[in-house]
Amino acid sequence: MPDNRRTKPALLAEFGRRVRAKREAAGFSQEELGARAGLHRTYIGGVERGERNISLLAVEQIARALRCSMSNLMPD
Amino acid sequence: MPDNRRTKPALLAEFGRRVRAKREAAGFSQEELGARAGLHRTYIGGVERGERNISLLAVEQIARALRCSMSNLMPD
Repeated sequence: MPDNRRTKPALLAEFGRRVRAKREAAGFSQEELGARAGLHRTYIGGVERGERNISLLAVEQIARALRCSMSNLMPD
Repeated sequence: MPDNRRTKPALLAEFGRRVRAKREAAGFSQEELGARAGLHRTYIGGVERGERNISLLAVEQIARALRCSMSNLMPD
């Protein structure tokens, strides 16, 4: 799947940018978002840097903590 | 995280229903969608039944194969 593989980093990086933008708009630190989402702050950091191929359930935890929809975080 | 945990199955089941509806609307078998997405048909079956906590990259592969947006598949 060379085509899919090529687009992966950009997709995760864009998702991470969206999480970071929403988090900063909400005035949360990574630690605070992590606490609200039930995820570790280092995991949040990895997500925001596009280093994590995050699962749908973790996306939901973050979306809920940010009080936004999951679709709103999608990079497309 | 009892609250998050309680909602998990419903979230994945709703995602799976959306994938199945789009796949059937496109006239694809699970096998055909799997081939187009670069995923095994048994994995597609598990996703449609809400048994898989699918990653963002796999969501993208399925969305691309279904020619729809990722946000269109989100269960919220």
